[in-house]
Amino acid sequence: NPGSSRRCRWASIPGPNMREAASMYGTAVAIFLVILVAGTLELSWNVSYVQEDVHFQLLVRGLKAGVLFGMSDRGELENADLVVLWTDGGRSYFADAWSDQKGRIHLDNQQDYQLLQAQGTPDGLVLLFKRPFATCDPKDYLIEDGTVHLVYGILEEPFQSLEAINISSLHTGLQRVQLLKPEVPTPAVPADTRTMEIRAPDVLIPSEETTYWCYITELPQGFPRHHIVMYEPIITEGNEALVHHMEVFQCTATFESFPHFSGPCDSKMKPQRLSYCRHVLAAWALGAKAFYYPEEAGLAFGGPGSSRYLRLEVHYHNPLKIPGRRDSSGIRLYYTATLRRFDAGIMELGLVYTPVMAIPPKETAFVLTGYCTDKCTQLALPSSGVHIFASQLHTHLTGRKVVTVLARDGRETEIVNRDNHYSPHFQEIRMLKKVVSVHQGDVLITSCTYNTEDRKLATVGGFGILEEMCVNYVHYYPQTQLELCKSAVDPGFLQKYFHLVNRFNSEDFCTCPQATVPQQFASVPWNSFSRDVLRALYAFAPISMHCNRSSAVRFQGEWDLQPLPEIVSTLEEPTPHCPTRGAQSPAGPTVVNIGRGRA
Amino acid sequence: NPGSSRRCRWASIPGPNMREAASMYGTAVAIFLVILVAGTLELSWNVSYVQEDVHFQLLVRGLKAGVLFGMSDRGELENADLVVLWTDGGRSYFADAWSDQKGRIHLDNQQDYQLLQAQGTPDGLVLLFKRPFATCDPKDYLIEDGTVHLVYGILEEPFQSLEAINISSLHTGLQRVQLLKPEVPTPAVPADTRTMEIRAPDVLIPSEETTYWCYITELPQGFPRHHIVMYEPIITEGNEALVHHMEVFQCTATFESFPHFSGPCDSKMKPQRLSYCRHVLAAWALGAKAFYYPEEAGLAFGGPGSSRYLRLEVHYHNPLKIPGRRDSSGIRLYYTATLRRFDAGIMELGLVYTPVMAIPPKETAFVLTGYCTDKCTQLALPSSGVHIFASQLHTHLTGRKVVTVLARDGRETEIVNRDNHYSPHFQEIRMLKKVVSVHQGDVLITSCTYNTEDRKLATVGGFGILEEMCVNYVHYYPQTQLELCKSAVDPGFLQKYFHLVNRFNSEDFCTCPQATVPQQFASVPWNSFSRDVLRALYAFAPISMHCNRSSAVRFQGEWDLQPLPEIVSTLEEPTPHCPTRGAQSPAGPTVVNIGRGRA
Repeated sequence: NPGSSRRCRWASIPGPNMREAASMYGTAVAIFLVILVAGTLELSWNVSYVQEDVHFQLLVRGLKAGVLFGMSDRGELENADLVVLWTDGGRSYFADAWSDQKGRIHLDNQQDYQLLQAQGTPDGLVLLFKRPFATCDPKDYLIEDGTVHLVYGILEEPFQSLEAINISSLHTGLQRVQLLKPEVPTPAVPADTRTMEIRAPDVLIPSEETTYWCYITELPQGFPRHHIVMYEPIITEGNEALVHHMEVFQCTATFESFPHFSGPCDSKMKPQRLSYCRHVLAAWALGAKAFYYPEEAGLAFGGPGSSRYLRLEVHYHNPLKIPGRRDSSGIRLYYTATLRRFDAGIMELGLVYTPVMAIPPKETAFVLTGYCTDKCTQLALPSSGVHIFASQLHTHLTGRKVVTVLARDGRETEIVNRDNHYSPHFQEIRMLKKVVSVHQGDVLITSCTYNTEDRKLATVGGFGILEEMCVNYVHYYPQTQLELCKSAVDPGFLQKYFHLVNRFNSEDFCTCPQATVPQQFASVPWNSFSRDVLRALYAFAPISMHCNRSSAVRFQGEWDLQPLPEIVSTLEEPTPHCPTRGAQSPAGPTVVNIGRGRA
Repeated sequence: NPGSSRRCRWASIPGPNMREAASMYGTAVAIFLVILVAGTLELSWNVSYVQEDVHFQLLVRGLKAGVLFGMSDRGELENADLVVLWTDGGRSYFADAWSDQKGRIHLDNQQDYQLLQAQGTPDGLVLLFKRPFATCDPKDYLIEDGTVHLVYGILEEPFQSLEAINISSLHTGLQRVQLLKPEVPTPAVPADTRTMEIRAPDVLIPSEETTYWCYITELPQGFPRHHIVMYEPIITEGNEALVHHMEVFQCTATFESFPHFSGPCDSKMKPQRLSYCRHVLAAWALGAKAFYYPEEAGLAFGGPGSSRYLRLEVHYHNPLKIPGRRDSSGIRLYYTATLRRFDAGIMELGLVYTPVMAIPPKETAFVLTGYCTDKCTQLALPSSGVHIFASQLHTHLTGRKVVTVLARDGRETEIVNRDNHYSPHFQEIRMLKKVVSVHQGDVLITSCTYNTEDRKLATVGGFGILEEMCVNYVHYYPQTQLELCKSAVDPGFLQKYFHLVNRFNSEDFCTCPQATVPQQFASVPWNSFSRDVLRALYAFAPISMHCNRSSAVRFQGEWDLQPLPEIVSTLEEPTPHCPTRGAQSPAGPTVVNIGRGRA
């Protein structure tokens, strides 16, 4: 009767590990929790940045024959790094294992997951084990910043050996988490905090794949200046899969008032004036939770000199074109009248939403890069610089990796945010481990890696869910006028590319002026040459910069045909530090007394 | 008085290592030897392919304060993987260490060089230590097939610590060896073996950088069919640095006789007919030693149906244009009248010597690839296939890596020969660890990686020492008519490239027909676009095949504008197997009793 015993039985693990287990609980730092399978598996973990290891505590309710748990590149059960608890019918075993590309499980040569404790509790079996971030075992997953795809499987029956386990017959699943969460405690919310819900009332979600819904609302008359200190999404129950992302914008103070509107943003009925509502107040996307500002900063809204009008934009993603679904999703703002020291701002880095930036079909890892140039930061940032404290990476469906790097004097100096296992289904706003200061003249380089293996035509940049974006929304203070610092290849050079490919392949697709860029991309014959040359073009051709104020107006200056920033030295991926494993690492499976109570 | 003691003193190493040391000598397999510094350092080693480790025995004569020994990518003392024996004035230490890019020495986290024995002998101090091929320590060198650059340094005085050692103040050096020699024993030479020297008599080496010297000689009248079973170079003393490579060719039997000649191969005086002397009998290049045929095969020469005339070609490399130097270098053939089972042959794989294959300047790792296509092997190989038993890789000065891969049905299946640390100064003919069988329809892909960081203009393919080659001379049996199976990009597509670069950069260099390809390459503006597009061209454009008989006549068929072989799956570099290190691996330096004799 596993998991229901009140008598705790401990695995026979030697002394030092017991002490370690105790000290883990002794230090009482934050422990993160995620439910892997409701009612069955619960994972808590604890990160030590000093030891460079993670302590995992896996609670298995109603244990049957065992459990698989681990990590893999994108959540697949193949090529996964696993711990396995299994029984051969007699004894139970715990081991560090890995699965090959066919999903067959093998014992690891190096046992890097170290079992510290196995304990039957009233809730179920609790396994406590730890693993270093890096093991230098080529079969192991490298635990990095950013998204980690946790995988699990439930063993329903005994297996004679690890190799006998057939993954395809198991109940398996995945859960995306940020395993290496920063040690930043959630800032306290001031006592005078009030809330405000910005929601589109009773929207009938169109039965279209992609809809951007625009809704105009307003702050009360005479609403004074406040600081937003936190916000969170409100998703109408049942629509969790349809609401892709939401943003709250403030309109420009240039106009006294704005007409009310609730409808698709591309509707002919939409008042022209709404295109002047572009100053971001809050942004949420699939997978994110509540967002807290650091204690020294808040996002200003209200008061003289700012518009009372707000625009909520909700991106509905309805691929099955479900009709008749009603929605009132939105964002709940938490704000205070006690202004904090700094106004915070949000800046958009990466690529302009334009089809000139495209990914050929059938690519496994095509990289597009957007720049925020030294010329723009020189002009638009204050001489004291700005401080980035949070970042939200954003792509559409084919995005696989995103990174923003800071470069100073031609040298990459710092990673602003990097996710090597980025998923468009898990777009959190993440607090940075370390605040990144950007000075005048610095360059910010945002690169996205895409996988278009399942596409037949080129994927162009744009707003549609089947088009792509490469964006990093950085949260920073003190606020500046610079709201958008992005680039795209010069369109004239792209036309040179189309001409060149046309001639080289002696084909005749239309490169005439009446063809649109997406049409031109759709007619490129995709062979190794046209792919490689597109890559070469993006790495060479001059760019068009968007160095914009909130009003969608460019800062003054020449922004077309700008040279690509010259980078003379790049940041190397740090060589992982591999701990010297002591004699305590077992060479094979550990026999576990899984504490089946007989009390 | 180190190294002169007759009383052997042993380091205090625990028991198991002593047993290992004994067993090493007990198994009595071949031990390889190389002199690192005459009179000072001598290295012997022993490879276990089962244990995947190398036992090193380093003899240090006249030990002063210590010695560095190790391996690095290309023989530099920076970024090297080292063992260090040093003294702080009191005790002596042995440790696994590494040097960073500035040449500073650090202790390795993992101690992968394991000291087995340190013994004072009458000859000097003998250090016996072992290391696995792969350690999975990112600071360690991966011991692979092919060239290994051994490095060493002599410590003349005590150092307080590893970190205190200043490499630039030491006497250091490098020696290239094939560390992982195959376990093929040298075949016995038959009792009736005779020798014949093919030497150009008394050549006055021209004071030109590059000279190919041609010399015609002949076999005795009625010389019957023999098998060459071995050959070795004869280099005139003092000219070791001038003789770059030598080949012995047999002339075609089509002509009754050939005129005698001794002069530069490009001389206007050279009789036309000599271009019919292209069947390779023996080939030697800088760094190689004697070459033995396997016991079942020999290289046929003499007898009816074959020409009595031989051409010796000597490539003199005289960059300092030294005048008046006389030379009689050549090759000594060892041959037997007792014919072996198979006739052996030599086949040339890789790139045609043509300027259409070029490397841009300032490249650190530019790859050029030559193909032997399925169409050629289908036509020219016997239905039973051929068996490659040895290989000699050849490039000129900028070559850094060479590999030939066998592909069958679009899938790479086997490495014929690979050298990731290839040096043009060490061009041995190497016996393969495993004979590679090539069937009709197989593809052989030879890739060379070049470093042109020190060049200002493009390096084109060709015969000159400052031009480049990418060749693998494979030795095989049974002999076929196919002597050369090489490719180059289609010249028409290269012209498309020149046009395209011209247009894209809006520059105006001459792509007119009167410009030669080297002139065209010399006027390309080398930017990231023209570099990337050249790479893209070579990876895409059709090729011109040379599928030739010994007579320099192509096999019948269409060989121009051939498609590049399609490869759907490539061989992955094997994941190195990292041994589980036991408790016997020390965590830091080992104290060594270096056995200063007091007898």
